[in-house]
Amino acid sequence: MTTSTWTRHHILSLADFVPEEYNTVLQTAASFREVLSRRVKKVPTLQGQVVANLFFESSTRTRSSFELAAKRLSADTINFAPSTSSLTKGETILDTAKTYLAMGADMMVIRHKEAGVPQAIAQEMDRLGVRVGILNAGDGQHEHPSQGLLDLFTICSVLNATNPNLELLADKKIAIVGDILHSRVARSNIWSLTASGAEVHLAAPPTLVPQLFTHFGTNRPGKLFLHWEIEPALQDADFVMTLRLQKERMTQHLLPSLREYHQRYGITRDRLKLCKPGVKILHPGPANRGVEISSDLMDDPELSLIPQQVTNGVAVRMALLYLMGSGKA
Amino acid sequence: MTTSTWTRHHILSLADFVPEEYNTVLQTAASFREVLSRRVKKVPTLQGQVVANLFFESSTRTRSSFELAAKRLSADTINFAPSTSSLTKGETILDTAKTYLAMGADMMVIRHKEAGVPQAIAQEMDRLGVRVGILNAGDGQHEHPSQGLLDLFTICSVLNATNPNLELLADKKIAIVGDILHSRVARSNIWSLTASGAEVHLAAPPTLVPQLFTHFGTNRPGKLFLHWEIEPALQDADFVMTLRLQKERMTQHLLPSLREYHQRYGITRDRLKLCKPGVKILHPGPANRGVEISSDLMDDPELSLIPQQVTNGVAVRMALLYLMGSGKA
Amino acid sequence: MTTSTWTRHHILSLADFVPEEYNTVLQTAASFREVLSRRVKKVPTLQGQVVANLFFESSTRTRSSFELAAKRLSADTINFAPSTSSLTKGETILDTAKTYLAMGADMMVIRHKEAGVPQAIAQEMDRLGVRVGILNAGDGQHEHPSQGLLDLFTICSVLNATNPNLELLADKKIAIVGDILHSRVARSNIWSLTASGAEVHLAAPPTLVPQLFTHFGTNRPGKLFLHWEIEPALQDADFVMTLRLQKERMTQHLLPSLREYHQRYGITRDRLKLCKPGVKILHPGPANRGVEISSDLMDDPELSLIPQQVTNGVAVRMALLYLMGSGKA
Repeated sequence: MTTSTWTRHHILSLADFVPEEYNTVLQTAASFREVLSRRVKKVPTLQGQVVANLFFESSTRTRSSFELAAKRLSADTINFAPSTSSLTKGETILDTAKTYLAMGADMMVIRHKEAGVPQAIAQEMDRLGVRVGILNAGDGQHEHPSQGLLDLFTICSVLNATNPNLELLADKKIAIVGDILHSRVARSNIWSLTASGAEVHLAAPPTLVPQLFTHFGTNRPGKLFLHWEIEPALQDADFVMTLRLQKERMTQHLLPSLREYHQRYGITRDRLKLCKPGVKILHPGPANRGVEISSDLMDDPELSLIPQQVTNGVAVRMALLYLMGSGKA
Repeated sequence: MTTSTWTRHHILSLADFVPEEYNTVLQTAASFREVLSRRVKKVPTLQGQVVANLFFESSTRTRSSFELAAKRLSADTINFAPSTSSLTKGETILDTAKTYLAMGADMMVIRHKEAGVPQAIAQEMDRLGVRVGILNAGDGQHEHPSQGLLDLFTICSVLNATNPNLELLADKKIAIVGDILHSRVARSNIWSLTASGAEVHLAAPPTLVPQLFTHFGTNRPGKLFLHWEIEPALQDADFVMTLRLQKERMTQHLLPSLREYHQRYGITRDRLKLCKPGVKILHPGPANRGVEISSDLMDDPELSLIPQQVTNGVAVRMALLYLMGSGKA
Repeated sequence: MTTSTWTRHHILSLADFVPEEYNTVLQTAASFREVLSRRVKKVPTLQGQVVANLFFESSTRTRSSFELAAKRLSADTINFAPSTSSLTKGETILDTAKTYLAMGADMMVIRHKEAGVPQAIAQEMDRLGVRVGILNAGDGQHEHPSQGLLDLFTICSVLNATNPNLELLADKKIAIVGDILHSRVARSNIWSLTASGAEVHLAAPPTLVPQLFTHFGTNRPGKLFLHWEIEPALQDADFVMTLRLQKERMTQHLLPSLREYHQRYGITRDRLKLCKPGVKILHPGPANRGVEISSDLMDDPELSLIPQQVTNGVAVRMALLYLMGSGKA
């Protein structure tokens, strides 16, 4: 599959992504990353098109990343801010989306605290027979596909910067540590990493990971393992992904204390000795320094891929907007 | 009158619009609607000019519509958000407007919860002898001229898509149903529709429409009628415009209940049988589904003009910004 | 020094600005002010570059001024709004800045209620070896260098519009009246004006100015004087700068009442008789009319430089972004 044969108009979930689609995203993102290294970091690809960012749930980094991606493709952007919105006036979410459709949005990037909202909007757009592209920028605890793809792109780029592709992960071990249960990032990453053939090891307190996660690995090249201790997950890992711990998990009595969490599941320099030499750390951000990861590791350029994740996020989102848009020609 | 003879620098009210002005707006909007159907929905008309959106009262759709209209004319836009403003520091509204003037705004789009604010700013600009254009985007319960013009454009476009003009309405009957008393949309529409020669029939509970509305029809080609029941307004109507019901009218004891309101004044498929065959419905949005209009009617593409109103809103606002700007050359 | 020899990548404080730097800013701003008088107020200087406005403390006019300056240099802008930010999630300020760095921001304009934040971010950027420019848009009660430079530019432009330069102020007397103690504007202005050789006279109630301000004048061409009465400061002044009075100073028991403050320190037409003929008034805005300045003076185009300050603010900020960016080539 090349960009000319891309057929997906919406990007809602990674559950049904096929390897050719992953590889097209990886290759397209690699070419856009090259654009971002130029002085004039802009291409005319989406000139005259409109990308509407409908963030019903607020976000700094994801909204900014999509906005920059759109602007670097020369699209016009429009931001929907829920606090100044008609939502307080009782308008339904579908009516809001249809309003931006009627205003001429070519693509909508949608975040909502409830799972399924982007899918519902995409279904409505398809029912109306319009070719607007819907991109899920995080829906409840369900999925965050652009984050899953940028993490995949970041990992593959470590292994081969000029030709990142899914096959590079076939024999790799990747640990995902933390609040798996509530993490849409973890869900999207599990889909992409098991599609690549990697071994994915989840580690979390029993209260923060459900047994049913093992179903993710069925019928996929990779394998999924679940641990209640961090050590077996880190053992010989090539990459460690640690997740943000929402502090409200304490008040929900899912965790005893931040300090105990750090002691048992925090990524520290000492624990990394279990991993393969050259191990790299990822974090979707924003991080709680000293909770899910010790502060010095975050700032260690030999170990941390965090800045690359952010940079690659813009390149991957440019690729997604480009691919969704190119399907319309 | 053509665009080359347009003289109005501010668009504050439709009360004194003359037929030639309406027709110039309708024709200019029709040409911009054609631009919006292209893949590259952008023209260089206002390149290097600045449109400041000063929304002292928050709004999703109107602000987005003006922002998109400005961007599609290649203007730079700047948004003034009241919550992050100096207003909390006690600056007067006129000082805020003069600040944006001094920063180089060529046009200002102003919404305020008090009637008369855009007019006051326009007067101050004229007193200073500057050629900045002021556009009223809704002032209290007074007027919302761009909404009135986009509704007119939408109705005329149904009757003649390629040549929408005021004369098309000469023998039409248009019903406006709902909270007329508090509606700036209704006020602006009454001016434009009675200017066209149409018969305009208002229907509202006695608490939500004042008798003094009949003065709007004096000395105008059209006629204005007032009803306390919905049936005589709908009888043989060509177009039905229903207004948003602010739910706070209940707590103000102006209405008994939403259910009773819907029973007596809600637009339903059954009630539409009173109208002419081919009747079309308008709503300025956002709608309370099941209150002022039954939900299924909103989604019926044969009956509802709501999506067209939103699309035409961008085209009409492009036309207004263009006409105000062209007067400066 | 010309623009080709400008070396400063960050603009954090005016304390160590040298006369050649002031003059380069003044000359560059003069050329950009000429651009702003054109119909197409835009140059392609920063095409494809990104200016991130990180306003941890909210602001209308400064944020809008920087945003317009960036857009008129054809940069893309991205706004960080604290209320919709990850700050509520506990991310550190440095992590936020590093996120925008990784997204590709070429320059960051930073405002924070704590003194020293922009400096801390600049140090971190230098430690990382990256060439992103940091511009202090106001940090606590410390400094607001772009305001100091626009005030300097405004004063010098009165004396010589086509060739504003520092030497024009050598024999001038400038009064700064008001809440010196809490004013970052006053601090930045004291650095620039004493660098020019002007006599700077501060006047404030004893509770609103510290004796230690006299240290600002050490080893500089100009002289700094401190008064507890307004009259000696105004006597024969060429320019009078009055500062915004924060009304919370009352509740802090630093002032008896607004009325008494106006009587003793307010700028009035009567008091201006003490000044040189042709005296001009500056105010950084937003003003409390009738408190620090009488309302009629603000609107007197013969006396007030307030609109020029706002216009010059855009030109000076264009100059600063241009100079910071040109150092990267």
